[in-house]
Amino acid sequence: MIDVAIVGVSGFTGLELIKILSSHPEFNITYLGASEDYESISDIHPSLKGVFSGNVKKADSKDISKVAILTFLALPHKASMGFAKELLELGVKVVDLSADYRLKLETYEKYYCPHIDKEHLNQSVYGLPEMFKEDIKKASLVANPGCYPTATILGLLPFLNLRDERFPVMIDAKSGVSGAGKKCSETTHYAKINENCFSYAPLTHRHTPEIKEKLGIEDIAFVPHLLPITRGMLVDSYLLLKEEIDPLAVLKEYYKDEKFVRIYEKPVDIKSSSGTNFCDIFAISEGKKLFISVSIDNLLRGASSQAVVNANLMCGFSEDLGIPKLSYIP
Amino acid sequence: MIDVAIVGVSGFTGLELIKILSSHPEFNITYLGASEDYESISDIHPSLKGVFSGNVKKADSKDISKVAILTFLALPHKASMGFAKELLELGVKVVDLSADYRLKLETYEKYYCPHIDKEHLNQSVYGLPEMFKEDIKKASLVANPGCYPTATILGLLPFLNLRDERFPVMIDAKSGVSGAGKKCSETTHYAKINENCFSYAPLTHRHTPEIKEKLGIEDIAFVPHLLPITRGMLVDSYLLLKEEIDPLAVLKEYYKDEKFVRIYEKPVDIKSSSGTNFCDIFAISEGKKLFISVSIDNLLRGASSQAVVNANLMCGFSEDLGIPKLSYIP
Amino acid sequence: MIDVAIVGVSGFTGLELIKILSSHPEFNITYLGASEDYESISDIHPSLKGVFSGNVKKADSKDISKVAILTFLALPHKASMGFAKELLELGVKVVDLSADYRLKLETYEKYYCPHIDKEHLNQSVYGLPEMFKEDIKKASLVANPGCYPTATILGLLPFLNLRDERFPVMIDAKSGVSGAGKKCSETTHYAKINENCFSYAPLTHRHTPEIKEKLGIEDIAFVPHLLPITRGMLVDSYLLLKEEIDPLAVLKEYYKDEKFVRIYEKPVDIKSSSGTNFCDIFAISEGKKLFISVSIDNLLRGASSQAVVNANLMCGFSEDLGIPKLSYIP
Amino acid sequence: MIDVAIVGVSGFTGLELIKILSSHPEFNITYLGASEDYESISDIHPSLKGVFSGNVKKADSKDISKVAILTFLALPHKASMGFAKELLELGVKVVDLSADYRLKLETYEKYYCPHIDKEHLNQSVYGLPEMFKEDIKKASLVANPGCYPTATILGLLPFLNLRDERFPVMIDAKSGVSGAGKKCSETTHYAKINENCFSYAPLTHRHTPEIKEKLGIEDIAFVPHLLPITRGMLVDSYLLLKEEIDPLAVLKEYYKDEKFVRIYEKPVDIKSSSGTNFCDIFAISEGKKLFISVSIDNLLRGASSQAVVNANLMCGFSEDLGIPKLSYIP
Repeated sequence: MIDVAIVGVSGFTGLELIKILSSHPEFNITYLGASEDYESISDIHPSLKGVFSGNVKKADSKDISKVAILTFLALPHKASMGFAKELLELGVKVVDLSADYRLKLETYEKYYCPHIDKEHLNQSVYGLPEMFKEDIKKASLVANPGCYPTATILGLLPFLNLRDERFPVMIDAKSGVSGAGKKCSETTHYAKINENCFSYAPLTHRHTPEIKEKLGIEDIAFVPHLLPITRGMLVDSYLLLKEEIDPLAVLKEYYKDEKFVRIYEKPVDIKSSSGTNFCDIFAISEGKKLFISVSIDNLLRGASSQAVVNANLMCGFSEDLGIPKLSYIP
Repeated sequence: MIDVAIVGVSGFTGLELIKILSSHPEFNITYLGASEDYESISDIHPSLKGVFSGNVKKADSKDISKVAILTFLALPHKASMGFAKELLELGVKVVDLSADYRLKLETYEKYYCPHIDKEHLNQSVYGLPEMFKEDIKKASLVANPGCYPTATILGLLPFLNLRDERFPVMIDAKSGVSGAGKKCSETTHYAKINENCFSYAPLTHRHTPEIKEKLGIEDIAFVPHLLPITRGMLVDSYLLLKEEIDPLAVLKEYYKDEKFVRIYEKPVDIKSSSGTNFCDIFAISEGKKLFISVSIDNLLRGASSQAVVNANLMCGFSEDLGIPKLSYIP
Repeated sequence: MIDVAIVGVSGFTGLELIKILSSHPEFNITYLGASEDYESISDIHPSLKGVFSGNVKKADSKDISKVAILTFLALPHKASMGFAKELLELGVKVVDLSADYRLKLETYEKYYCPHIDKEHLNQSVYGLPEMFKEDIKKASLVANPGCYPTATILGLLPFLNLRDERFPVMIDAKSGVSGAGKKCSETTHYAKINENCFSYAPLTHRHTPEIKEKLGIEDIAFVPHLLPITRGMLVDSYLLLKEEIDPLAVLKEYYKDEKFVRIYEKPVDIKSSSGTNFCDIFAISEGKKLFISVSIDNLLRGASSQAVVNANLMCGFSEDLGIPKLSYIP
Repeated sequence: MIDVAIVGVSGFTGLELIKILSSHPEFNITYLGASEDYESISDIHPSLKGVFSGNVKKADSKDISKVAILTFLALPHKASMGFAKELLELGVKVVDLSADYRLKLETYEKYYCPHIDKEHLNQSVYGLPEMFKEDIKKASLVANPGCYPTATILGLLPFLNLRDERFPVMIDAKSGVSGAGKKCSETTHYAKINENCFSYAPLTHRHTPEIKEKLGIEDIAFVPHLLPITRGMLVDSYLLLKEEIDPLAVLKEYYKDEKFVRIYEKPVDIKSSSGTNFCDIFAISEGKKLFISVSIDNLLRGASSQAVVNANLMCGFSEDLGIPKLSYIP
């Protein structure tokens, strides 16, 4: 058993990490960290009652280094790199769920804030297993991808060499509200979301540079929407091909060895991947116009279960050890 | 007061027609027709109790012609043209909510079925007031547009001359479930729709030829989705411009005289137009990439209230007489 | 036309008042008041764009008294009585949507806070038209009932003399989230409400004393729940009868002259009354056990449309003048 | 490993059985039965793709008896007893999820239909582990309780000796739509359920006799409601006590040794138990009035996970072996 810590247990992704790791056969949670002390984790998450107990500490890197080999950081950007820097220097491996180590320095500082840990930024591996599996296995610091980039990149990767580069990739993404986190705001108010749907940050969302950088495509229009659902995400991409192809055949070939990508012959839906680490993909073309539809659970494949897949790889375990596969359907 | 009939009162659009017409200052409902007799309309729609009463008859064109100047047909395609033909020959004006008179003969027969009323097909006017207001005023037969085409066309019209025609228009449309009608099926089952979202008929939906024909654009990718909401629709279009523009200025100028198009400076949402005949539009560009987001109530602007606007115009009334404007928000 | 003011336009009930009054044939909105100035009401409620315009002022009683005969106060308790006192002294009639004038002094001060306008408290009329229609017609100050009390009382009134008083009335109430208002909190967060249901303040909710006092029944258990819907309310009451009766016959007789109470022979649902001022009631008994189910729109019959009914009565108009009757179904 | 069969795999409870059993450490699924053959279970449930495969056979008792020690019957009542009779005679143990073996003969035939397997009816054990754990361990036939009875009985059991029997128990139950099964009908149509809530079969629902018989209380009013959610159930009971008590203390003492009953000090919600076999209970009293609120997952604790708990007990395993405990929250 490998001892691990979770920092940032009060949010949604922290909860999902606890759920996965508490029933994982090889990881042993030894530390729960938050911004303050709590008597019990079930004071924060009452649904953990009878399932997992443990007190929560105001997170401290030194304390963590005494009890954990690897730490999951489920923190906002900026806060995350403070901890990561200290933990790495203390010899603790890190899977960081924030944006802090995902981007090149100049991209990061343009869209987020000044970076305070440039040293480790250079060593970080982008934790999308289908792209960087071998690098992840050797990494001490893995930058877990954003939810939108995960779904978008997995949908587009197989078609990178087939697309007509004279035209942009248009991405219409739809996310459940849990992506906005646990804090209350106008856009998480039930009356705003229910029986409604709208785009936000059209063409300007901060996940756009992450998608561009990892795919190496500059000409992208990315528009996220909020759906009246709690979890899950559908990312639909529209692009032009150089010539006519069979998109399902391309997908099946590209992902033939991947355990967590499922290719469907009918349009994918959000719910079939909810509760799981699967990335479900459908594609269809008409002439040279290609439509790709990708579904993931934003909190799992888009955050916490992908983080544990990365930890599995970093620790030499099978990629799918203890990873959720049973969808919430119905 | 002008006497009017509604045929097809048992469905959702039939109900909406009753709701609008029963409180309209100049139309007087004299006939409710369905596929069979009912003692009272509130047997079919209990929410009409205390609001509107009247018995429902198995629809008969001759009976209608004795009591109505104008008839709204809220029927499936094919059934509709049977009634329309008879009614027109009996001198009754018709607003047809089906697809039967919307398309050129060859387009119709390719996507639907053989046409049995070619004569009137040639005389029908496409009932999108912002495109054909003057023709509608003189028409005896108005083909009320489909919900998706209404929203799509109104969003794209102002940009037709500005777009780069080498690139297709990509349309990602999202609709509430009421668009699928009142009958039960796998895709109207609560457990299928709730906490879910998926595309259907991607690139092959029957509203695509309607959009293409009315806009005069062949190169269109149209993908509809079902949202976990009952009513309302968001249609997002992505296209390339010939040169950089201010899309909000274009919209405001184009629609400056229209009562039922609202231009918003922030992304539109579905709920603000729900319950109304408004078409709400937002647009933003980045370089030559243009994103247009359009919201309508699929049952009102996409069907029944637009039908009454058309009837207003056909009868010489003000376009907005008795037309709903108050959104369901919150 | 009678000039009226609305104070508290930024909340949900303020919005509903604007929607009703802006299309009312005899009331003319001359003043919109809030806690601060706004250039335009559609800055607060974008869905009013193209429907109703007007600037919003930091509410001031003297200013109001110059332009309005009657004022609707859509404010929190405590804030409301400050304005009501001043307005009444300036000769302006008041319909108060808060709890400030609903209860006897001692009850109010026990459950809310010290009362600062005891003088007018004695003159106020409880604005449930089915109970106090004649008093409302003569009133200068009407205390609009709470949403839960409205539905509960209308369901129980016809059975008051028939119940076995040795046993309590058990009330299981279910409300949409809009009842919690527009402000963001843990219990309005989408992820907390969606796919969920729970009781809150069981046996201790502040609407309980209002129900007890108006019905003159002390032995009541009242438990409200939050439903994953935005608007509407279902209140289910369970009680014992002195002897077996036909509850539907009792209801029909009791409400035979009321325009806004509908008796259904099948269980009522929330949606059929949503968007309207109707109170829909169903009841069934088995032996001496009686079950009563009542549905209202919490923001309309439970607040704003009932307020306008009261204003109609206070101004000598027909009760149903300009009052919404068309449900949101589907 | 013990070989087991599932008959009725196409419905919701069949799917849940597959999900639990496919990851159970001691049960091995050897047979999937339905009303017809299917090439693959993922043709029926696409979300099983990549998780569990196997072909589906038109169910046949003899075939089952060759490959399974125990069979789960996830069939409608009446169909179920046909299979159970044959399987039991062939020596196969049965956990029956239908109503067929839950009730005394006369009760069953009054509310359902003539019974065709009276012999085994006498030997069946009612599969509520908190009531009949020792009997279940020795049983060959376990009748898995209904969802409403499970939640209702677990809430009321600890208070049976404390209640004032002169007053009835009033039960207001609220269920997600999945309880109505996978088939399409008016009450599973999205537009009927969404933004709505209503009672159905008030005072006459078929789960009432099951509750009465197991609790030994005749004087019960039971009213179920449909909630706009897919899964989960809240059952609220109202009753009178003989004297004042501390209900939480009663609950904690009564269930102190139970692994799958959680007592909460704040009102329980549906979502915290969704995805799990937990039964969450809260209670509060005011004087002698007692309110009990119980939450379960209708498809798990109310059907499939409780069935596997019963199978665990029947086969000598620990009650909680392989039973889901991680809630779907958020």
